[in-house]
Amino acid sequence: MLGPSMNLDFSKLDGLVAAVIQDGSTGRVLMVGFMNDEAFRRTVNTGDVTFFSRSRNKLWVKGETSGHRLKVREIHTDCDRDAVLIKVDALGPGVCHEGYASCFFRKLDNGEWVENERRAFDPEAVYTTAPGKSEAGRK
Amino acid sequence: MLGPSMNLDFSKLDGLVAAVIQDGSTGRVLMVGFMNDEAFRRTVNTGDVTFFSRSRNKLWVKGETSGHRLKVREIHTDCDRDAVLIKVDALGPGVCHEGYASCFFRKLDNGEWVENERRAFDPEAVYTTAPGKSEAGRK
Repeated sequence: MLGPSMNLDFSKLDGLVAAVIQDGSTGRVLMVGFMNDEAFRRTVNTGDVTFFSRSRNKLWVKGETSGHRLKVREIHTDCDRDAVLIKVDALGPGVCHEGYASCFFRKLDNGEWVENERRAFDPEAVYTTAPGKSEAGRK
Repeated sequence: MLGPSMNLDFSKLDGLVAAVIQDGSTGRVLMVGFMNDEAFRRTVNTGDVTFFSRSRNKLWVKGETSGHRLKVREIHTDCDRDAVLIKVDALGPGVCHEGYASCFFRKLDNGEWVENERRAFDPEAVYTTAPGKSEAGRK
């Protein structure tokens, strides 16, 4: 459980902190999400990374639809306590709803964003066979 | 130069995107900052990571006071183009204004944030001998 004085500073982003997700084995940065206080506490207490969706205005457990959950290894915060870095074991072939291992699959190359890796899975297959599927709610 | 159609989505954070800074050699996540369109373009065009300071409401070149600049190696963006991942060569012993190699020097341990590394430099020495020093403006 999280101690009462161990709170983060949610004031700078209207109740949210940025959460950087890093693969605990490879060191690869997988995605960036946002957490409100409840999402952060659930992440700590359940061991499953849980974000606050700004577009849907609700909590979402990453992987609850796809099965590609993010299991917490370590949680760090920064000097200002307004961001967290979470090292995880990523279940499944990738975290990105577009089918890539990392959401950061595009690299800037001479002024253009180019894909610099291949898809790790077929997002249509993953998200259309799972219960609770929806285009807007890929998780 | 950045092509005109290669823009990021600045709409979700009132004109900003989150920028994750990762050491290009070690893979360590060093800090998270925010960029507006101009900060991002300056980062691309100068090769020095440039943020937008929310507290001071202006651009700041990371390391302009301390000398601890972040030299761009690679820039990635994510599926939604609302965050960037920048791999850098970090000049100097650390990026954190509190004297640590990474701003993420605290780790959650049984519900408490504990420092899990030693300071890499003395922030008083770095920031009080540099021109343009100020407590609020440590860069």
